[in-house]
Amino acid sequence: MNAPESSAAQRFATELAEACAPFPGSRKVHTQQAVTTPQGPLKIHVPMREIALSNGERVSVYDCTGPYTDPAVAVDVRRGLPGPRAEWVAARGDTEAYTGRSHDVQDDGGVRTPQGAARLEALRAQAAGLQRTPRRAKAGANVTQLHYARRGIVTPEMAFVAEREMGQREWMAAHLGNAEREARLRGDGRGARIPAVITPEWVRGEVAAGRAVIPANINHPELEPMAIGRNFLVKVNANIGNSALSSGVEEEVGKLVWSLRWGADTVMDLSTGNHIHTTRDWIVRNSPVPIGTVPIYQALEKVGGVAEDLSWAIFRDTLIEQAEQGVDYFTIHAGLRLPFINLTADRRTGIVSRGGSILAKWCITHHKENFLYTHFEEICEIMKAYDVSFSLGDGLRPGSLADANDEAQFAELRTLGELTKLAWQHDVQTMIEGPGHVPMHLIQANMDEQLKHCHEAPFYTLGPLTIDIAAGYDHIASAIGAAMIGWMGTAMLCYVTPKEHLGLPDRDDVKQGLIAYKIAAHAADVAKGHPGARARDDAISAARFEFRWEDQFNLGLDPDTARSYHDETLPKEAAKHAHFCSMCGPKFCSMKITQDVRDYSEAQKKEAEAGMAAKSAEFKAAGGEFYIPIQPA
Amino acid sequence: MNAPESSAAQRFATELAEACAPFPGSRKVHTQQAVTTPQGPLKIHVPMREIALSNGERVSVYDCTGPYTDPAVAVDVRRGLPGPRAEWVAARGDTEAYTGRSHDVQDDGGVRTPQGAARLEALRAQAAGLQRTPRRAKAGANVTQLHYARRGIVTPEMAFVAEREMGQREWMAAHLGNAEREARLRGDGRGARIPAVITPEWVRGEVAAGRAVIPANINHPELEPMAIGRNFLVKVNANIGNSALSSGVEEEVGKLVWSLRWGADTVMDLSTGNHIHTTRDWIVRNSPVPIGTVPIYQALEKVGGVAEDLSWAIFRDTLIEQAEQGVDYFTIHAGLRLPFINLTADRRTGIVSRGGSILAKWCITHHKENFLYTHFEEICEIMKAYDVSFSLGDGLRPGSLADANDEAQFAELRTLGELTKLAWQHDVQTMIEGPGHVPMHLIQANMDEQLKHCHEAPFYTLGPLTIDIAAGYDHIASAIGAAMIGWMGTAMLCYVTPKEHLGLPDRDDVKQGLIAYKIAAHAADVAKGHPGARARDDAISAARFEFRWEDQFNLGLDPDTARSYHDETLPKEAAKHAHFCSMCGPKFCSMKITQDVRDYSEAQKKEAEAGMAAKSAEFKAAGGEFYIPIQPA
Repeated sequence: MNAPESSAAQRFATELAEACAPFPGSRKVHTQQAVTTPQGPLKIHVPMREIALSNGERVSVYDCTGPYTDPAVAVDVRRGLPGPRAEWVAARGDTEAYTGRSHDVQDDGGVRTPQGAARLEALRAQAAGLQRTPRRAKAGANVTQLHYARRGIVTPEMAFVAEREMGQREWMAAHLGNAEREARLRGDGRGARIPAVITPEWVRGEVAAGRAVIPANINHPELEPMAIGRNFLVKVNANIGNSALSSGVEEEVGKLVWSLRWGADTVMDLSTGNHIHTTRDWIVRNSPVPIGTVPIYQALEKVGGVAEDLSWAIFRDTLIEQAEQGVDYFTIHAGLRLPFINLTADRRTGIVSRGGSILAKWCITHHKENFLYTHFEEICEIMKAYDVSFSLGDGLRPGSLADANDEAQFAELRTLGELTKLAWQHDVQTMIEGPGHVPMHLIQANMDEQLKHCHEAPFYTLGPLTIDIAAGYDHIASAIGAAMIGWMGTAMLCYVTPKEHLGLPDRDDVKQGLIAYKIAAHAADVAKGHPGARARDDAISAARFEFRWEDQFNLGLDPDTARSYHDETLPKEAAKHAHFCSMCGPKFCSMKITQDVRDYSEAQKKEAEAGMAAKSAEFKAAGGEFYIPIQPA
Repeated sequence: MNAPESSAAQRFATELAEACAPFPGSRKVHTQQAVTTPQGPLKIHVPMREIALSNGERVSVYDCTGPYTDPAVAVDVRRGLPGPRAEWVAARGDTEAYTGRSHDVQDDGGVRTPQGAARLEALRAQAAGLQRTPRRAKAGANVTQLHYARRGIVTPEMAFVAEREMGQREWMAAHLGNAEREARLRGDGRGARIPAVITPEWVRGEVAAGRAVIPANINHPELEPMAIGRNFLVKVNANIGNSALSSGVEEEVGKLVWSLRWGADTVMDLSTGNHIHTTRDWIVRNSPVPIGTVPIYQALEKVGGVAEDLSWAIFRDTLIEQAEQGVDYFTIHAGLRLPFINLTADRRTGIVSRGGSILAKWCITHHKENFLYTHFEEICEIMKAYDVSFSLGDGLRPGSLADANDEAQFAELRTLGELTKLAWQHDVQTMIEGPGHVPMHLIQANMDEQLKHCHEAPFYTLGPLTIDIAAGYDHIASAIGAAMIGWMGTAMLCYVTPKEHLGLPDRDDVKQGLIAYKIAAHAADVAKGHPGARARDDAISAARFEFRWEDQFNLGLDPDTARSYHDETLPKEAAKHAHFCSMCGPKFCSMKITQDVRDYSEAQKKEAEAGMAAKSAEFKAAGGEFYIPIQPA
């Protein structure tokens, strides 16, 4: 980055402001919900985005953007977001504040030069206002949502999720219209069981069964809780990472907020190199969505990038470091066992998971079993003291069609199933990561194996990519697989950007990847028959049919792009009210016909006996409206 | 267009040149094939694109670009392409040249002003070198590929198709490698029956059964024959149309060639307004792929856009006009029957097919049965005299999820099945058009209904779009449905561009739409288990794994974009030979690991008994290569 600090800072401030702008025609609304908790009644405020249509209707949609996009809230990224969850956690009385682990320069990759030290100091200064006193479970306590759920306790987090998933179903049901249509379009849940009304008690049941995860570290009070499970809306994760020479908090938080704007339900911070700890302070304190990490990445930095120098002690310390910061879920590659490594020797693309290859390197160097596997229960002890959820990593996922569904992949998957049971014995919330590169005809087998061996623990897949030759367009090649596996039962889809296999995604790549995945997730929700999921489609189709152009733009996934595409062909403001579009033009409009058809249909009923001649003449006379001369431009 | 004629012409000449540039690392090759025909032996030359890899391997891929992208051929768009098929047609001796229907100004929308007349004259002048003497079947003869096929005649067209579909399977088989992998990845044809070796005789059988169509008008000698059928590679169609104020032949042919470059197997000319006939002269004479049209569009222009003024006489004359020009397939909305129109009255989005709504308007105005239905056999008589194939249009396709799979849609589909049988009685080649907007869980039902009622006649679908809310990204929302229905048995996919529902696609939209659909088609071919389809994926995965960056770019669907994405992150030429990528960087590389794993695996076999300590030390020593200090930029 050659731009002077000041102008760079300016640029990132501008980008952050762009990411925070309200969507056109939309405003942030909060539904109020009274919840009874063991500690007494509680009011929760669940955010939604309300889109006002030109016909007076209002459509509310699920909203991941938190206080961002709400002009009423001024966010100072150097102080962090408000923490409404703090009182919920405190009220439970099973946690204690304590003097956490103190920051070590190694947490930020260490310093080798005076300049390096100065730089770290400058960046740490930007995190000064973001330091919080960590909490942990009191001795002997278990503070996971799973633990509460199994004891019949409905938490505010569960109530929040219920309200959020329920959305405006009354409106939706009303909007969806006639019974014939609903019967015809009834979804195929393929084993999903989604109730018409979502209650906090039902959410508790899903969490208790391990079918849903609510990633919610007690040290992440800024969180707006969400659930990941096959009976919930399909969620999307976006990966972000620090810039090699980060200009600071505005730049990194800008990436987070940009992801939220385009629909990221969770965000994974995959930062590497220097300043990982400080970057994470910036991210977590400013995130209303769950933050996930792959702790082995930071551990590797602490040992100078030499995998075989990794140790349980360093890894354990890293888990606590990140748990105290408030990370909500950890990718842990504990299923990559020593005996499985040989199974990858004949693969077309070997081991492509970065975490997986780090651990494989460690295992074969020491010829020892994976220390994440041997220390798994110790990891559970840490997770349950903070309610960090497991995302059990698929270190042996296929990196090409050729390696899909091979023994290496499935041997690891079966092991993840065993580890799920172990994690559940500790009441630690758990989800399972999946591939990767899988041709369409082998996707169902992945879902079946996961359901069979992992006991319905939420599946969290990367794509899968359905072909290998789409370099530059892998967000599309993988959105196909993502939509299919989402329909089959996958709970969360990790996005893929156009830069996959080629480079690091920029701002627009992140947007393109997220929109492709919101399409996949919504297609899955519609196919599953998620109640009301289709209401937004019906609303936009009605707008399209009635030539309410602004409504069509605003109901879409990307109003700005839709509007600009329309304007390229028909720029004039008038065209947005015109009862025609650029496809057929003013001379002829296929939509216009239908009114004639309806009139005809009516007339027919009325005068079934009427003579042809009369009718013919009558319509002939009406034919004039059908030929509108084009105005000279 | 405000640019002066000259600069506009310059721009279009440049764009045409861009579209003709050979792909990086690729060259046009032709396989020679000796064919025995009833008229004696014949040599055919089938084009393919050969990609030379840096490791000495050569990968050949299916090529739609004809003489374009071949530097050895200089194309003059005002004279048209050479016509190798002319001798094949003439040799059959069942056709005759005749003085065709003479050009009527109405064919080009008529002229109302002196300027209009002058403009038409100027544009016609650009078609002067493209006029050909039309041929038709001799009295009583039937010149369709279906007619020959049913009589056991293998035509040069069938032989050409066989060679083209076969491609380099020997190489592919060799490349695909070990048996375990092939068994594991064996496709699921879902009823498709694709032989390991494709012979001209097998192609004949598919055509004879009506399962495949070879659109090949006898007046289109420039054609490189291709087949559309569920047992062939899934094909992609691109729609193009004339510009309101066309600058001339270079502009319109430029759109055609651009579509071919990105993989259009057929192109539909959906021109409207003025100069339709002249534009078609330009397109057909310069097209190596089949050209399809919707004749009702031109007929409507001839009656000033007043649907109720349409008549069989005008329509019939338009069919002959276009058949003489060499159009290979016609979309005919003959299945939209009067009784079905009322079924659309309660739809969310009524009738969205332009052709469908034109005919609905005509039917309800006159309260008469659709004249395309009542005159269907007369249409067949025309089609078989030129071998124009039917693409039976779905005028009642759903325009929203809400209308998917309703009685209006399926009633029309069943009628298309009846018409297919009628067309086959005349030996007229026939394919069936399909939707539209369909949620994932209703796609299989569309395929099942089509197979059941249309007797395996090739299905040709638009998308389907799996959601309605993706305005600006409908190429992605529909690529999901297209990949699925392609796997289920659809033979050709009509592309959707990002401008769908919003405006007219520009040059980049056409490219984006085509690449999304090549992804969908290839994903379907891989899932169906088309022999060798996966070989290109294996080749690119091997290149990816071995850090052969240039090979990875050149084997992809869009080498230029892949290269530019890579260069954004690692611009240096050196990086293209680097044994690492930007995802993990030089300090750590997951791909690099696998070599260690292979060595380890080898070593283990060799010295199963060797002590841990020794091995540990050995790998520790090797660990050095694992930490490569980053060079200062």
